[in-house]
Amino acid sequence: MRISDRIEAAVGRAVQSGLGGMAPSRLSATLDYAVNPGGARIRPTILTSVAMACGEDRPELTDVAGAALELMHCASLVHDDLPCFDDADMRRGKPSMHRAFSEPLAVLSGDSLIILSFHILARAAPLGADRAVQLIDVLSNRSGMPNGICAGQGWESEAKIDLSAYHKSKTGALFIAATQMGAICAGQGAEPWEDLGDQIGEAFQVADDLRDALCDECTLGKPAGQDDLHGRPNAVATFGVTGAVKRFDDIIAGAIASIPACSGEAALAQMVRAYADRLVPANARTHNVVPGE
Amino acid sequence: MRISDRIEAAVGRAVQSGLGGMAPSRLSATLDYAVNPGGARIRPTILTSVAMACGEDRPELTDVAGAALELMHCASLVHDDLPCFDDADMRRGKPSMHRAFSEPLAVLSGDSLIILSFHILARAAPLGADRAVQLIDVLSNRSGMPNGICAGQGWESEAKIDLSAYHKSKTGALFIAATQMGAICAGQGAEPWEDLGDQIGEAFQVADDLRDALCDECTLGKPAGQDDLHGRPNAVATFGVTGAVKRFDDIIAGAIASIPACSGEAALAQMVRAYADRLVPANARTHNVVPGE
Repeated sequence: MRISDRIEAAVGRAVQSGLGGMAPSRLSATLDYAVNPGGARIRPTILTSVAMACGEDRPELTDVAGAALELMHCASLVHDDLPCFDDADMRRGKPSMHRAFSEPLAVLSGDSLIILSFHILARAAPLGADRAVQLIDVLSNRSGMPNGICAGQGWESEAKIDLSAYHKSKTGALFIAATQMGAICAGQGAEPWEDLGDQIGEAFQVADDLRDALCDECTLGKPAGQDDLHGRPNAVATFGVTGAVKRFDDIIAGAIASIPACSGEAALAQMVRAYADRLVPANARTHNVVPGE
Repeated sequence: MRISDRIEAAVGRAVQSGLGGMAPSRLSATLDYAVNPGGARIRPTILTSVAMACGEDRPELTDVAGAALELMHCASLVHDDLPCFDDADMRRGKPSMHRAFSEPLAVLSGDSLIILSFHILARAAPLGADRAVQLIDVLSNRSGMPNGICAGQGWESEAKIDLSAYHKSKTGALFIAATQMGAICAGQGAEPWEDLGDQIGEAFQVADDLRDALCDECTLGKPAGQDDLHGRPNAVATFGVTGAVKRFDDIIAGAIASIPACSGEAALAQMVRAYADRLVPANARTHNVVPGE
C-alpha cells in the first residue's frame, strides 16, 4: 500500500474512533470536517518515511502515530483560525471551522482532536506499551508548553517576539515530532532524529514565507499576505526572494546530511529531496510563483 | 502527608514542568493562574482516596495522576468561561482567564493544560509504562469525544439536548476518570470502579443545581443562576428543592453501595459520606443555603 493510502486510512479510523457513544451530532461532524479533505499530510508522510528507513517492524503502530500527529496538526489549524487569532474565513479551500459551524464548536473540535490524538496512541498499547508511552511523550512535548506549538503561538501575545523561538516551536516542533515518532515506531531512539525534523521544519517555514509573499489567494486556498498583515517576521522580508531561496537550499542540504545511519538512509534522502522540490519547485523559483501545499 | 498537601505539591510540580525552555512569559503565567488557588480539588481527592483504598503501592504515580486530572479539569474551566461559551467574568473569586489575560491566551492556556496533563502521565512511565498508558487511555476517554467532557459541552450546541448524555459526559465523566484512575494507580482493573465515579458525578451535579438555584453570587465566587440564564436543564427545576435533596441522598447511598470489595472499603465509604456533607450539609438544607465548592 502506498504511504498516502496508509495515512488516509489511518486518519479515517482515528476520526471514526471519536464518534458514536452518546456524542452530540454537530460536534461529531466537525471531526471529519477538520481533517478531510486533508492537505499534503506532510508530517505523517515524514513520520512513516522515517519509520520505514529505520526498518519498520510494527506498521500498525506507525499508522496510528501518523494519524495522531495529523490530528494534532489539524487541531492547531482549527484553533489558529479562530476570530481571536487569525480570524480566517477560509482553510484548504473551504470555510474555516468557526465559519462553517460556530466558534464554540471550533474550540471544542480542536480540544477533541488534541485529546483524540493521545487517546488513539494509548489504545495502541497492545502493540507495545513502552513505544506508545514514548510516542505520547514526544507528541505532547512538541505540542504543548514549554516546547511545542502552543508555546510558539503564545509568542504572538508577547510585546517582543523571540523570532527563533517562535519559528522553532510554532512550525518546527511538529516536524521534530514527525521524525522522532517515526524512529520510536520502529523501536529506535528518538534523540538522534531531532536535527532532521528541526531542519525540515525550518525549510518548511522558509517555503511558507516564500508562498505567503508571492502567491495569490486562489492558489493558497487561504488569504495571502497574512504575515505582512499581522506584522509577523518573515524570511523573505529579511533576505529577499533570492536570499530566501538560497537559504532554503542550504537547509535542505543540511537536513540530508543530518540523517542518522539507518538501513533506509538513501531512500530517506530521496524523500527529503522530493519534499523540497514539491515545496519550492525549480521552475517556480524563476517565475516567482510557488504552489500551495 | 495529608491528601490535600500531596495534591497541592503534585499540581505545583505539574505546572513547573510546563515552564522553562523557550516559552513565552505571558502564556507561562497563565498556567499557574488557571490552577491556583484551586477549588476543593475534589477529583484528585477522590482519585487518591480510591488508590489508597485499593492498597496504593506507587504513591508517586497517584500524585502524578491526580495532578493530570486536575489540570484537565482546570483546562475545561478556562475554555468554558470563554466569551463564546459562558462569557464568565469571574472564576473562583478572581477574574476569569480571558479577562485577566486575553482571549487568545485563554484558548492557548486551556490547550496547553490539556496537553500537559498527558505529558506528565507519559513522563511517569518509569513508574510503570503499562499503568501510565492505561491512565492516559482513561483520562482521554473521559475528556474528549465521544464520551468525555468535550462531548458534554458539545450538547450545548445542539438544537435538542439529551439531558442524560449531557450531564453524564459534561459533569460525570471526570468523576469516572477519578475513580478509575485511582484504581489503575494501585494496579487494579478500572472497570469495576465506573459505577462509583458515575454516581459521585451525579450527586455533584444535583448539588451544583441546588447551589446554582439557591446561592448568591458572593458565596459562589461566580455568577449565580447561570443555568436559568442559559436555559440549561436543572434538577431543582425538575424536582423542586426538597425533591432534589432527596435525590441527592439516594444517589450517595447508591454510590456507597457500589464500592467494589477492597482493603479500604470502609474508609472510602466514610470519604464519600464526608464529601456528601461538604456538598450539601444537613443544616444548610433546612435553611435553603448551600455553600460553594
